[in-house]
Amino acid sequence: AKEIGLLTDEIEIYGQTKAKVRLSLLERLKDQPDGKYVLVAGITPTPLGEGKSTVTIGLVQALTAHLNINSFACLRQPSQGPTFGVKGGAAGGGYAQVIPMEEFNLHLTGDIHAITAANNLLAAAIDARILHENTQSDKALYNRLVPVVNGVREFSAIQLARLRRLGINKTDPGTLTEEEISKFARLDIDPSTITWQRVVDTNDRFLRKITVGQANTEKGFVRQAQFDIAVASEIMAILALTTSLQDMKERLGKMVVANDKKGEPVTAEDLGVTGALAVLMKDAIKPTLMQTLEGTPVFVHAGPFANIAHGNSSVLADKIALKLVGEKGFVVTEAGFGADIGMEKFFNIKCRASGLVPSVVVLVATVRALKMHGGGPNVTAGAPLKKEYTEENLQLVADGCCNLQKQIQITQLFGVPVVVALNVFKTDSPAEVDLVCEIAKQSGAFDAVPCNHWSAGGRGAVKLAQAVEKAANQKNSFKYLYNLELPIVEKIRIIAQKVYGAQDIELSPAAQSQVDRYTRQGFGNLPICMAKTHLSLSHQPERKGVPTGFILPISDVRASIGAGFIYPLVGTVSADKYKRACPEGLKWLEVRCCE
Amino acid sequence: AKEIGLLTDEIEIYGQTKAKVRLSLLERLKDQPDGKYVLVAGITPTPLGEGKSTVTIGLVQALTAHLNINSFACLRQPSQGPTFGVKGGAAGGGYAQVIPMEEFNLHLTGDIHAITAANNLLAAAIDARILHENTQSDKALYNRLVPVVNGVREFSAIQLARLRRLGINKTDPGTLTEEEISKFARLDIDPSTITWQRVVDTNDRFLRKITVGQANTEKGFVRQAQFDIAVASEIMAILALTTSLQDMKERLGKMVVANDKKGEPVTAEDLGVTGALAVLMKDAIKPTLMQTLEGTPVFVHAGPFANIAHGNSSVLADKIALKLVGEKGFVVTEAGFGADIGMEKFFNIKCRASGLVPSVVVLVATVRALKMHGGGPNVTAGAPLKKEYTEENLQLVADGCCNLQKQIQITQLFGVPVVVALNVFKTDSPAEVDLVCEIAKQSGAFDAVPCNHWSAGGRGAVKLAQAVEKAANQKNSFKYLYNLELPIVEKIRIIAQKVYGAQDIELSPAAQSQVDRYTRQGFGNLPICMAKTHLSLSHQPERKGVPTGFILPISDVRASIGAGFIYPLVGTVSADKYKRACPEGLKWLEVRCCE
Repeated sequence: AKEIGLLTDEIEIYGQTKAKVRLSLLERLKDQPDGKYVLVAGITPTPLGEGKSTVTIGLVQALTAHLNINSFACLRQPSQGPTFGVKGGAAGGGYAQVIPMEEFNLHLTGDIHAITAANNLLAAAIDARILHENTQSDKALYNRLVPVVNGVREFSAIQLARLRRLGINKTDPGTLTEEEISKFARLDIDPSTITWQRVVDTNDRFLRKITVGQANTEKGFVRQAQFDIAVASEIMAILALTTSLQDMKERLGKMVVANDKKGEPVTAEDLGVTGALAVLMKDAIKPTLMQTLEGTPVFVHAGPFANIAHGNSSVLADKIALKLVGEKGFVVTEAGFGADIGMEKFFNIKCRASGLVPSVVVLVATVRALKMHGGGPNVTAGAPLKKEYTEENLQLVADGCCNLQKQIQITQLFGVPVVVALNVFKTDSPAEVDLVCEIAKQSGAFDAVPCNHWSAGGRGAVKLAQAVEKAANQKNSFKYLYNLELPIVEKIRIIAQKVYGAQDIELSPAAQSQVDRYTRQGFGNLPICMAKTHLSLSHQPERKGVPTGFILPISDVRASIGAGFIYPLVGTVSADKYKRACPEGLKWLEVRCCE
Repeated sequence: AKEIGLLTDEIEIYGQTKAKVRLSLLERLKDQPDGKYVLVAGITPTPLGEGKSTVTIGLVQALTAHLNINSFACLRQPSQGPTFGVKGGAAGGGYAQVIPMEEFNLHLTGDIHAITAANNLLAAAIDARILHENTQSDKALYNRLVPVVNGVREFSAIQLARLRRLGINKTDPGTLTEEEISKFARLDIDPSTITWQRVVDTNDRFLRKITVGQANTEKGFVRQAQFDIAVASEIMAILALTTSLQDMKERLGKMVVANDKKGEPVTAEDLGVTGALAVLMKDAIKPTLMQTLEGTPVFVHAGPFANIAHGNSSVLADKIALKLVGEKGFVVTEAGFGADIGMEKFFNIKCRASGLVPSVVVLVATVRALKMHGGGPNVTAGAPLKKEYTEENLQLVADGCCNLQKQIQITQLFGVPVVVALNVFKTDSPAEVDLVCEIAKQSGAFDAVPCNHWSAGGRGAVKLAQAVEKAANQKNSFKYLYNLELPIVEKIRIIAQKVYGAQDIELSPAAQSQVDRYTRQGFGNLPICMAKTHLSLSHQPERKGVPTGFILPISDVRASIGAGFIYPLVGTVSADKYKRACPEGLKWLEVRCCE
C-alpha cells in the first residue's frame, strides 16, 4: 500500500494480506491524470475457459515486475459457491496468481456476505409487507408505520419523500385524510409480479424452487419462490456500477422488486429499506487491495454475472487504480465470457456508467478453442481432451480462426486497438502458434503474441506487455455502439446484428409486453444487457465458429432498474436458470460429496 | 492493542476500530497466571431485559478507567436479524457501551457470515447426497466419490478414516468388494430424521416453514424444511466452546445431522465436508478486539442462543483475556437469560469445556423486574410501563425479592461468591434501592450495590467494582452441579429440582425414546443444555417470583454432538420455535417496514 502511494488513513487493513481502500482517495487524486485502461476479453470459449484471468495477472506482472511500468489488475470477486463445486477458485493460476488464493476465493473482506444480507433483508421486507397489508386495516398499518414514540408522532425523511411522490404535501401525520392514509400505507404489491428473490452464496440445488410461508403464523400466504446465487443479486450489479456512496444509495432505492396491482413499479424505497441496505453495504463499496505472486497490486471488487448482469468488476476500483498508476501506468481489467458478451457490456454499460475511455483490448485465444471452432470434437468439463486437441492439427486451427477474426471485428466496432494474446498450452506446436498470430494480424489486430505466463509468470507475458504498451499509444476513436434514446427493441437489434451477426431478432409476446411495460414506466432509455449463452456467437451453444443466418429469439425481457439496465433473455431458457448458472459456463453444481 | 500487550504479529486489524487476535497468543502466554474470572448473570428478567450487558461494560470501565485495574469484557456477538427488528443492537447502552456501535451490531469481522456459509454448505451436502444415492448405482456413486484424477485413483484422508470406521482395512480403491463399495458409498440417510437446517441471519418469517427441492432437476425429492436464525446453528455453539483449531475441526466432524435407516448417527465427517467447514471457519475462531467508550478492551466472540445452546461468549476469548489482564486483573463475561439458565450452563457446560474456575458472580437485578415478581402488572415490550413501575412501591419490591433470593441460592449451589448489582433507573426511589440491597445481603450475597453506569459510565459502577474486587479474594469452592456419568434423565432431574425448584420432571414418550437413542449411540455422558423459557424459573412464563410444586415437562430431547451437549426441550414448544426465538426474550420479528 505504501509503495503504490496510499496514505495510512486511506486504507483499512483486513488481516495481513488484504486491505480495503477508502473512496476519499478519489477526492485527493482528482486532478491527477488517468493511466491507460486495458480490457482483457476473449474469443468464444470452450466450457473450460481460455485463461482471461491468468492473462490479466500475467500482463500486470510483466508490466510492473519486468518492464518497470506502474500497473494494477482489477478483478472480480468469485462466488464462494462454485469454489466448493468443481469449478475451483478464480485467483488465476500457475505463476500468474493472486495470493493468498484461499483469501481471494473465500470470504475475502465480506462484500458478498454484505450483499447477501442486504438482498435478503429486502426479500423479507417484501413478504412481511404483503402479509401485514393483507391482514390489517389501513389505520393499524398506518399506526405501525408511523408510531407514537415518546408521545410524538413524526414522518421519517423517507416517508416524507414517499408522501411527495404520492402528491400528498403534508408533514403532520395527524392531518392525512382516510384516503391519503390508505394511499400512503398500502403498496398493494401483486405477489405474482415479484421479481426479487432471496440469495445464498452456496451451490444448493434444493433451493432452486421452493414454497415459502408454510408456517401457521403466515396465515396461508404461501408462495413459490427460489434462491439465486448471491452474485446474481441486483445489488452486486449496483456495487459494480456505482460511483459513490450517495449514488449507491440512490440506486438501491430505485431497485424495482414487483409491480403493484395497477401495474406500477414498487421499489426498495417504497418499502422504506434504502437506509438499511446502504448501511449494510457501507464497507462493501470500498475496493479490496491484494497482490500477485510478483507483487503487482490487484483490486478485487464486485463480481456480477456476465449473463443477467454485465460481468465486469467495479467502476470504483478501476477509477481509483487509474489515478494510482499515474499517466504512464496501466490498469488491466477483465470482462466475463467472450468479447461478444463481456466486452460489449463493458463498453456499452460499464464505460457509460464510469465515463472512462478504454485504451486497448487484449483478446485472449487458445489453440484449443480455435480447433473447436474449426470443427474439432466436443470439449466437456471433467472429461479427457480428444487427441485433436493434444496433437498438431493446422487445418482445425486455420478453420477455427474465423471466430478470432469475428471477435477482432467486434472490437473494432468500438474503435479501440486490439492485441491478441495467445495463451499457449504445452501441447500447442510452434507451427500452430505461428499460424494463429499470423491470421490475427491479417485480421486487423494491432499485434498478436504468444504468452507463457502460466508456467513462467510475468516473464512469459513480456512480449504481450510490450505490444499493449505500443497499442496504447495508437489513435483511439472509442465510441458506444448505440444511442440510449433509441427504442429498446432497436437497441437489442443493433447488438444482435452488429455483434452477434444475427439476421434479425424475434420477440416473444411476453418479451414484447415487457418492453412496452418498461417503456411506459419510463425505463426505455437504459442500456441493454443481453443474457445469452457464451458458448456461441448465436443463441445455440452448439454452433461454433461464426454462425450466420440466424434469427435471435428473445423469450423475455427483465430489468435491473437500480443497476440501470434492461436484460433481454435470449433463447428459451428462463431468467431463473440464468441466475443459477455459474459464470464462465460451469453449471450451478451440487457441492462435492468428497474432499 | 499495544496497551494491553499484544505483539504486532498477534493481531489482524480489520479497519480502524476492530482487530482479530491470533490464537498463538495462548502459546506465548501459557505460563502467565490467569486473572480473576467474573460472570455477570441476572435474576429472572422482564421481557425488556435488565441490563446485564451494560453492567458488564460499566464494571470493566469502573475497574480500569477508575480503579486502575486491568480488565477485559468478553461479550457475545449479536445476531444481525433482531438488530433490524425491534430489538436494536446489543452493544450496551448509554455511557456503558462498546464503540463504534454499528460495527459491533452489523458484520463485525464476518464470523456469523462464516457460520452461515459453513452451515449451509453442510445442508446442501445432505440433500445432494440423498439425491445422488437415490438416483445412482453403487458403482456410479463410488466412481464419483473416488474419481480417477490424472490416471490415478486414490482415497482421500477423510475417506480412509471412513473406511476404518466401517471396518474396511483397505487403501487401494480397486480392491473393495461390491458389498464394501456399497457400504462405503451409501450413507443411507433417513430424510425424516434430518435435524440439520439451513440458516439465515435475517428475520425472515416466510422461511419458518418451507418446501425445498421443487425444481424438476431434483426429480421429485421434495421435503419440508426451514431456515433457522444463523446464531442458532450448532456451528455457533462449537465456536463458543472450542479450545483450538484442531478441536474445532474435530467438533465440526462430529456434528450429527441425521440418522441412517438403521438408526445410526450420520455426521458431517461421513459427508466428507469437515475440511471445507474448517477452512470456512479458520478466521472466525479468532476473537475480535474492540473497546468501550472509556477505552477498556473488549472481546466480542460467538453468540450462541441461550435456549437450544448455552448462551455464552467464547471460551477462547475468555482464556486469552485471562492471560492478558495478568494475575490481579479481571475478565468479566456475561451469561444469557436469568442465572437459572445462562449461569447454570456457564458453569456446567462452558467451564467444563474450558477448565476455568469462576471467581465471582455478579447478579443483576432491577427494581422493575422485582416489582413484577412481587405481583406487579404485566410488562410488555413496546407498551408503556404501568404506574406501579414508575412510582415508589416498597411492598411490590419486598414481595418480589424472593426471585433475587432464589437466584442467589442457585449461585451458591456452585460455591462461588455472589455480588448483587442493582441497575438503577431514574424512577427508582432511594428507599426501594436500599430495600433491595438490604434483602440481597440478608439472602447471602457477599455484597449488593446500586449502579448508575448507564447515565454515568464507569464512575457509576465504581462501588460495584470495589465489591467485586473484594469478593474475588473470598474463599471459592467452585463445583459442578452433576457428574457427567449420571444417566441423562438423572442430570435433567438434578437441574430441574435444585435449580428451578421443580418437584419432579416428566418426559414425554418422544423425549424418553430420544434419551434411549442417545444413550445407545454413546452420547449419554454429555452435559445438559436446558431449552426453557427465561421468563420464569418454571416452564410457564406467566409464573413469576419463585414457583413451586410444579412438574417440569420435557417434550423432546435433542443433541448437539459437535458442540457437546444434550438439549431437552421444556414445555410444549418445539425445537423449531426455540431456534427462531431471539435471545433475551424478543420474538423472531418481521423486519421493520419503515426506517
